[in-house]
Amino acid sequence: MLESLTLPLADDFHLHVRQGAMLRDVVPLIRQGGVGRCLVMPNTVPPITSVEQALAYRDEIQSVDPDLDVLTTLYLCPELTRDVIMRAGDAGITGVKLYPRGVTTHSDLGVADVGAYDEVFAAMSEAGLVLEIHGEVQSDADRDICVMNAEPLFLPVVERLHRHFPALRIVLEHVTTAEAVAFVERAGERIAATITVHHLDLIVDDWAGQNHNFCKPVAKYPHDRAALRAAVSSGSPKFFLGSDSAPHPRDAKECAVGCAGVFTSPLMLPYLADCFERIGCLEKLAAFVSENGRRFYDVLESRDCVTLERRPCDVPKAYGSVVPYRAGETLAWSMV
Amino acid sequence: MLESLTLPLADDFHLHVRQGAMLRDVVPLIRQGGVGRCLVMPNTVPPITSVEQALAYRDEIQSVDPDLDVLTTLYLCPELTRDVIMRAGDAGITGVKLYPRGVTTHSDLGVADVGAYDEVFAAMSEAGLVLEIHGEVQSDADRDICVMNAEPLFLPVVERLHRHFPALRIVLEHVTTAEAVAFVERAGERIAATITVHHLDLIVDDWAGQNHNFCKPVAKYPHDRAALRAAVSSGSPKFFLGSDSAPHPRDAKECAVGCAGVFTSPLMLPYLADCFERIGCLEKLAAFVSENGRRFYDVLESRDCVTLERRPCDVPKAYGSVVPYRAGETLAWSMV
Repeated sequence: MLESLTLPLADDFHLHVRQGAMLRDVVPLIRQGGVGRCLVMPNTVPPITSVEQALAYRDEIQSVDPDLDVLTTLYLCPELTRDVIMRAGDAGITGVKLYPRGVTTHSDLGVADVGAYDEVFAAMSEAGLVLEIHGEVQSDADRDICVMNAEPLFLPVVERLHRHFPALRIVLEHVTTAEAVAFVERAGERIAATITVHHLDLIVDDWAGQNHNFCKPVAKYPHDRAALRAAVSSGSPKFFLGSDSAPHPRDAKECAVGCAGVFTSPLMLPYLADCFERIGCLEKLAAFVSENGRRFYDVLESRDCVTLERRPCDVPKAYGSVVPYRAGETLAWSMV
Repeated sequence: MLESLTLPLADDFHLHVRQGAMLRDVVPLIRQGGVGRCLVMPNTVPPITSVEQALAYRDEIQSVDPDLDVLTTLYLCPELTRDVIMRAGDAGITGVKLYPRGVTTHSDLGVADVGAYDEVFAAMSEAGLVLEIHGEVQSDADRDICVMNAEPLFLPVVERLHRHFPALRIVLEHVTTAEAVAFVERAGERIAATITVHHLDLIVDDWAGQNHNFCKPVAKYPHDRAALRAAVSSGSPKFFLGSDSAPHPRDAKECAVGCAGVFTSPLMLPYLADCFERIGCLEKLAAFVSENGRRFYDVLESRDCVTLERRPCDVPKAYGSVVPYRAGETLAWSMV
């Protein structure tokens, strides 16, 4: 039985750190969780739609933790012209995030018609920016669309983008369904997917009435979770960590209408080690957190390492105002 | 446009009034909602498993509202012998409720093996007791069973009971899926179903993060809701009101792990009139609430009437500690 595990510092290719006081509270926890590099999401208020905003956001985060390697992405919107994309590429911005309108937190300014952005996608291919996609269609009762089937119904949009822009790297974020996993597996090498910790653990039953497990996309059927587990167990380089860790104050979760989001950042590697061991693929953890993603994104290897040891790790009841994932439970692995 | 609507006082064939202080708080609200007769559920703590308990529970409820017609049902468990069933019939007890183990509030003492109760079902047929069923199998990830598909998977159990005990009247409670509606429609005349107000309104999206809409069974897909609406619109005598109205204090809903249950009792007929009108079947409301159920249960016609008028009805933010369904919204119909 493995007693300790040394890995390169992890990359989290999908992270929410919010703004202001919340940002200052949660940024110091990222490296505590074993993550040294993160791609921060642009669905702030207002969203990050310019090169200047993205760089300022990166600087704000790094003023809290100068040792954190922060990658940025722009919120896809009409402001993103070809010129902005080219400047973004020059400025070292990593990607552009596509939020379909109305599907998740702060997506009210999201995209109603993906086809309207073909010029942007062409410029991104040229500039080497990665397209990150929240892959869900909006619920529509008349078409029998709801949060349970919204992800598979979005896949044709990704397929079209992939066909029209074969050079464009696309990450289907936080996949939750067997259909999305199968799509990514059979697509070309410029399509990859992130997987969260919590979607490897949860099914619909686990967020029914359990507010701290409620996120978007919602966790689905057991067979969907099994497909996600099989994807990480396979060691396929197309799947890597994008935690979607999203802090909300307790009051915004334990209330009549709770915010969507699961907070995993402070114990990212302990959660993952605990989960991968239960699934039976602990030997695939290092590639999932520190190899597959950086190869796809074409960023440098981590210089530093982190060690986990088999020692009970009690998940705190809260970090300040934020209740973490699996609060009060005990994980099998701790950070050294 | 109809301006007022006079109906016989309604029957609610599935109602939770709980115990103690909560019972005293919610019982007076039942007739305010236009319901004159109700079948109260036996999943109290401890559950109602004897004739004496059932009669005492009825008396306790009627001590709060002597004008309420209270029907009782026993919790199916090993204490229910043939002798108990015969005495229950003589004592005027209406039915027996089958809770599969572990599927809902206070079902931990529920039935693990339905087949073990064939003697009870035979006695019930003889005594004329109705079997009410919470029709869900327990979630089991290994068999891909979760709250979204647990109801259709239970239908074979009901089918077997119906075949083995053709004289037994069976009510499939709070149906939520197109499969359950189709099953009830094609089954013999001794199979009927109750439908709640909230399942006519809600889909999975509506309880995702929205704690006051979370109930068991959970609301499902748009096509399932459409099937429920079609069932009530059809005017089929096999479908009638069983609200499953279930009061929980606000603290037990707006918290980390919320209780399942939607509280509709105080405005039952206004909710239903509002809903039936939106669906376009207001003319079917009277039979749904005061004819189909009493015919199936073979109980007397209501002596009293109630009138609704088209006048905005503001749903209170709370009744004491309990937040009602659609709190703060405005319904199109009011009780006179």
